[in-house]
Amino acid sequence: MVSARPVTVQPMGELPDSYPLPGLPEHVTIYEVGPRDGLQAETRLVDTATKIEFIRRLRTTGLTTIEATSFVSPTWVPQLADATEVLSGIGAPEGFRHPVLVPNQRGMDRALEAGATEIAIFVSATETFAQKNLATTVDGAIETAGSVARQASEAGIPVRGYVSMCFGDPWEGRVPLGRVVDVVRRLADLGCRTISLGDTIGVATPGHVRALLDALGNAGIAMDRLALHLHDTYGQALAGVLEGLRCGITEFDAAAGGLGGCPFAKSATGNLATEDLVWMLTGLGVETGVDLDALVQISGWMAEQLGRPSPSRVVKALYRESAPDPLF
Amino acid sequence: MVSARPVTVQPMGELPDSYPLPGLPEHVTIYEVGPRDGLQAETRLVDTATKIEFIRRLRTTGLTTIEATSFVSPTWVPQLADATEVLSGIGAPEGFRHPVLVPNQRGMDRALEAGATEIAIFVSATETFAQKNLATTVDGAIETAGSVARQASEAGIPVRGYVSMCFGDPWEGRVPLGRVVDVVRRLADLGCRTISLGDTIGVATPGHVRALLDALGNAGIAMDRLALHLHDTYGQALAGVLEGLRCGITEFDAAAGGLGGCPFAKSATGNLATEDLVWMLTGLGVETGVDLDALVQISGWMAEQLGRPSPSRVVKALYRESAPDPLF
Repeated sequence: MVSARPVTVQPMGELPDSYPLPGLPEHVTIYEVGPRDGLQAETRLVDTATKIEFIRRLRTTGLTTIEATSFVSPTWVPQLADATEVLSGIGAPEGFRHPVLVPNQRGMDRALEAGATEIAIFVSATETFAQKNLATTVDGAIETAGSVARQASEAGIPVRGYVSMCFGDPWEGRVPLGRVVDVVRRLADLGCRTISLGDTIGVATPGHVRALLDALGNAGIAMDRLALHLHDTYGQALAGVLEGLRCGITEFDAAAGGLGGCPFAKSATGNLATEDLVWMLTGLGVETGVDLDALVQISGWMAEQLGRPSPSRVVKALYRESAPDPLF
Repeated sequence: MVSARPVTVQPMGELPDSYPLPGLPEHVTIYEVGPRDGLQAETRLVDTATKIEFIRRLRTTGLTTIEATSFVSPTWVPQLADATEVLSGIGAPEGFRHPVLVPNQRGMDRALEAGATEIAIFVSATETFAQKNLATTVDGAIETAGSVARQASEAGIPVRGYVSMCFGDPWEGRVPLGRVVDVVRRLADLGCRTISLGDTIGVATPGHVRALLDALGNAGIAMDRLALHLHDTYGQALAGVLEGLRCGITEFDAAAGGLGGCPFAKSATGNLATEDLVWMLTGLGVETGVDLDALVQISGWMAEQLGRPSPSRVVKALYRESAPDPLF
C-alpha cells in the first residue's frame, strides 16, 4: 500500500560538512537491522513482497550488511513468519552479506534449508531477561546458542553474537560490567566473529559505553571484534556512538528509518535510525559508503507502508509531503 | 485544558548510573528556553495563566535560569504577546534568573517597564537569515542589539547575546567559522556576559562544534563566556553537547519537553529537550541540580496543554498514560 498523497523530497544540499575529530576510525561498517530487528517490533504486519522490496532497495544505498530476517518461532514473532520466503526472495548477490537471526536448533535447520550463509545468535547478560525473553537462564541461552554456533563454524558459516541488556535491565537495574565481560568472552570462545553489545532499553550514556569497552579491552577482547547496538529510547544513542568511535569501535548497528522505534507505540524500544547515524558520521568525515539521500527516500517509503511517520529525526527533517519552506 | 485521561508516571528507578569521563566539567548550567524559544514556535496558543504556571513549576525542578518570554512585536510572534503579564506574573524569587528576549529599543522599553532584570539580545551570523528573520543586515542587527546592550549595561542589567545560524544556513549552506568568530567578538565587545552559539537548523556534528570552539578560543574568547544552543532537528544535539563538554563549555540551552520541536509540525526546528540533556549529564556524573523525575512530569503536563506528545525521547519513555509493562 503506497499512500496516494504526493510526496516531495526537499533538496539534500544540506548534508553536513566534514569536520573530522582526531583519533576516530576512517571507515566504519553499518550493520543494518531494519528488516529484522525493526520489522519484528512493528505492530503492523508487512507482506513478504514488501519486505523483499525493502531489502532490495536498501542494497542500492551502499549498505552492504543487511540482516534479513529471523528464524524464531512464528508463534512468538508472527511478523517474521515468512523468514524462508524473504531469505530466498532477496537472493545472494555478490558483495552483500545477509545474516539471519537463529534462536536454536530448529531455527538453524530452517535457516540452512533456506540457504542462510551467515547467522546471528543471541543471549542475555541478565537472568531476568533470559527468563522473560528466552525462557531460560543466561547459561542455558549460551548453551543453546553455542550448539548452533559450533554447527555453523563447522559448516564454515560466520556467526555473530548478540548480547542483550549490556547496560541496564528494567527489572534488575544496573548490570555489572563484569557480567557482560563474562558473557562476551564465552561468545568469543564459541567462535563468534563479532559480538554486538546491545543496549536493549537505550539507557547507556557515553561514559558507560567507555567503561564497558575498557573492561572488555582489559579482558583481552579486541575492539574490532565488537559492535555497538544502541537504542535511542532516551535519545542517547549517537552520543554513545561518538564515544564508541573514540574507543576504536568500527561496527555499529542501526535500523533504516528507526524502524522498531515507533514513537507512538508503547512497545517502542527505539532502534537508532541509520539516517541519524550516517548524518553524524558524514559530519565527522567517517566513511560509511551510504548514500543518505537514497536511504531517506526508502525509509520514507517504508514509513508509508507502515502508515506512520518515521521516528528518525533525519527522515522527519528531509522527507516531507511538500517542503516549500521547511524552516518557518 | 488538562486531558481527561488518567495519567500514570512509571517509576523512575531507571535513572542512569554515573560513569564519568575524564576532563569534563563537574557542574554545568542549563539555560532553560522552553517558555520562550519553545512556546514561540508552538502553533497552539497557550494562555497566560498556563505560561506562568509552567514557569513556576519549572522552578521546582532545580532549574534556576529560565528565559521567561520575549518582548518582540506581538504582530510577529502572537504566541508571546503577553510578555508583560507573564514577566510580572512569575515574580522574582531569590535564587532564580529570568532573562527575557529583547529585539530593539521598543522591546527594551517594554521589558524594563515590566521589571526585567536580565535581557538577551539576538543577531545572525548570516546575511540571509538577518534579512529573513530580522529584516536587516548582520551589521544592522548588531547595531540595533548593541544600542540595547549598552543601555542595559549602564543600568547594571546583565546581557546575553544569541547568535543564530552558527553552523549552517538553509539558504547559504556552509557558514565560515571566521564569520561566527567575528560576530561573537563584536557581541563580547558590546558587553554580553554570555554568548550563545545557535545551531538554528540543527545540522552541527561534533567535529564542527569543536572546530568552532577551537576557532573562538584561538580568537581569545574564553569558554566560560560561551553557551551552546543546539537543536535536535537531525538528532545530533547531544553528541554536540558531549563534544562541547570536552572543550570546556559549561552552559547549555535546552527546552523542557523539547518544546518548539513538535515532530508533527512542518515548522519543527527541534529544540534539544532538557530531559534528554539531563539524562546524559546524569550518566556522565556532571551535576545539573535538576530533578529529572519532576521535570518529566511537568513536560508531560505541558504536552497535554498543547494537545500533542512531547518530542523528548526521555519524556516519551517515562511519561505515559499507563505503564504496566513499557518494554514489551
